[in-house]
Amino acid sequence: MKNCILLFLLFGWTIYAQENVSFGQQKEIISPEINADNSVTFRLDAKEAKKVSVQGDFLPPNGFATGSADLVKGADGIWSFTTSKLASELYSYWFVVDGVKVHDPNNAYLIRDVATIVNIFIIGNGKADDYKTKDVPHGSVVRRWYDSPTLKLNRRVTIYTPPGYETSKESYPTLYLLHGAGGDEEAWIALGRTAQIMDNLIAQKKAKPMLVVMTNGNASQTAAPGESSSKMDKPVFLQPDMFSGNTERAYPDVVKFIESNYRVKKDKANRAIAGLSMGGMHSLVISANNPDTFDYVGVFSSAMLQPKDSKADVYASFDQKLKTQKDKGYKLYWIAIGKTDFLYKQDMEFRERLDSIGFKYTYKESEGGHTWSNWRDYLTEFAPKLFN
Amino acid sequence: MKNCILLFLLFGWTIYAQENVSFGQQKEIISPEINADNSVTFRLDAKEAKKVSVQGDFLPPNGFATGSADLVKGADGIWSFTTSKLASELYSYWFVVDGVKVHDPNNAYLIRDVATIVNIFIIGNGKADDYKTKDVPHGSVVRRWYDSPTLKLNRRVTIYTPPGYETSKESYPTLYLLHGAGGDEEAWIALGRTAQIMDNLIAQKKAKPMLVVMTNGNASQTAAPGESSSKMDKPVFLQPDMFSGNTERAYPDVVKFIESNYRVKKDKANRAIAGLSMGGMHSLVISANNPDTFDYVGVFSSAMLQPKDSKADVYASFDQKLKTQKDKGYKLYWIAIGKTDFLYKQDMEFRERLDSIGFKYTYKESEGGHTWSNWRDYLTEFAPKLFN
Repeated sequence: MKNCILLFLLFGWTIYAQENVSFGQQKEIISPEINADNSVTFRLDAKEAKKVSVQGDFLPPNGFATGSADLVKGADGIWSFTTSKLASELYSYWFVVDGVKVHDPNNAYLIRDVATIVNIFIIGNGKADDYKTKDVPHGSVVRRWYDSPTLKLNRRVTIYTPPGYETSKESYPTLYLLHGAGGDEEAWIALGRTAQIMDNLIAQKKAKPMLVVMTNGNASQTAAPGESSSKMDKPVFLQPDMFSGNTERAYPDVVKFIESNYRVKKDKANRAIAGLSMGGMHSLVISANNPDTFDYVGVFSSAMLQPKDSKADVYASFDQKLKTQKDKGYKLYWIAIGKTDFLYKQDMEFRERLDSIGFKYTYKESEGGHTWSNWRDYLTEFAPKLFN
Repeated sequence: MKNCILLFLLFGWTIYAQENVSFGQQKEIISPEINADNSVTFRLDAKEAKKVSVQGDFLPPNGFATGSADLVKGADGIWSFTTSKLASELYSYWFVVDGVKVHDPNNAYLIRDVATIVNIFIIGNGKADDYKTKDVPHGSVVRRWYDSPTLKLNRRVTIYTPPGYETSKESYPTLYLLHGAGGDEEAWIALGRTAQIMDNLIAQKKAKPMLVVMTNGNASQTAAPGESSSKMDKPVFLQPDMFSGNTERAYPDVVKFIESNYRVKKDKANRAIAGLSMGGMHSLVISANNPDTFDYVGVFSSAMLQPKDSKADVYASFDQKLKTQKDKGYKLYWIAIGKTDFLYKQDMEFRERLDSIGFKYTYKESEGGHTWSNWRDYLTEFAPKLFN
């Protein structure tokens, strides 16, 4: 064993246990370092670089481009940059070294957003505390496959069951939670921090224990990139079938699957549906096409976005569908959007359309735009309003 | 909607739906490109770079360091390198640009191994076909938390249930599958491709449908880095408590949890335990300390590695424990190691120790060393031997 310990010390984990994937060239430096005042210092060892910058959503955006700040090279060849004090949030960033995108080699925490991988960090002592895993009872998260007879596909779904689900005899309500264009059944759990948010809201008794069903809204896709039998090509934003109405048409398959396989309450009062952007449109279309199914609807950063020339049944006679939904009643129709969202105008037009037929809704206008920061906020605000 | 489509075309997914995490500076290039002859071409847009290389496990290693090959700069500023024809495998790599580690910005598929993130790709038409998700029935993978009374911790575990588990009335056998030092409950599912391997073996009727329970073998840790309430620090290889015996001592908590919460067969003939490296040691120690529990034991790239001065009960009187295990009987004790594994000598000493007491085992010697390539092979070979 002494030999073995020696080997450890000599070669570290480069060779022991977890194979060969070390990268020895980086000096042991801390990045990102969250300072006591909630400023953050980024560091990168790049002795030969001429220019190093950090791009991240905590920096003022540059038009449509992500904000950028230059790092300064120290005498030891370590570049660094310290932000101003940051508000509580989950932030994402990457470095650019002489024109090449570089992940922070000292930060192992990455999230994929469509085809882009970003480093993340969390500033606590505020709203983002709810995005952290805390010492509270935890729900389970399962990736499971189900049959969609409508789409004739076996598809993957991500399901959060609340703490105690497996051992209680209780039946639970269900929130169906839909991602935006480019996303998939991983988006809400990874970028949306749904498991952490729900665990924390439930522990604080702010939200009822509920299932959260995160479906894949790309009707031609069986699963997230890398998780299906499709080639491991670059994930694309513009999925085929985005506005065909197939996702909405096939949604009852999901509800049927959940209600046949999970201990859930099977009535309108115990079903909610919400989504962001494309998923917001899906939610409003699905709920209008199934006016007896959902008592709670959340439309985040979205509107009625289907193409005007669409022939899909789910979009046809839509005013009539909304009137029927209104007449049949619902408990909450919650619309939220950021003031600078590029869909703000469409959202306003949609609200005017609802107003014109006397369709009641609750409207929340937040700061900011079309961002995960807002969508995590909206989930955190929406979930407590459900099933009361 | 026409405006909206225009917006799409103008700004693409940079702004729509999935926030702001685009990275516009890279030209649209394909990397890695798997060519018809199974050679692979890597490309990187790095106009200002002086030197670009690719490091990966498909290149001949350079001593203890991962193999490296230089890319050549084309007239368009795109660097490229094409490998020779590669054998079927899941490979990992990264670029080094003027001394800085860079992930391939055109490859969204990354896996974390301890603190190191690597790009991956799969060469099919051979053994690695079993590492791909195919159009076969899929099991479910759940991340769930359980109480370990022995460790006084609530801990996270990754559980694979076979296709049909949720709807059948059958009870299933269970394989407990343990990671190596530096790993956690995510290692076998991510690097080990356990879900894909099991789905494919079960579909081919090469393995019996079974649960696979992937525990966290770092006794002081509640969950993988980033998944617990601990700070999101850099994951470390040398966990405290690695050789305290606590993982082995507390393992009955896991078995009890599984057998109280899943529809599994609760007898020795229907339990297997296997692990790689540190997890191989855990498996042999746990099985020897619980000689009535496991009929199948897999020791991958491992040996009896506990410190000689350890005071832990689980390591005490170990020859006597092995003798008891031998006398009580078991169906398969499978030891596998690569010829160039740095633990080869320790493994040989362990086999001599077993020989000296007439303890029967099956020995498999493979090419290669202490690698995930071998561990995926061993799982693929071991699982079909179970529960027959």
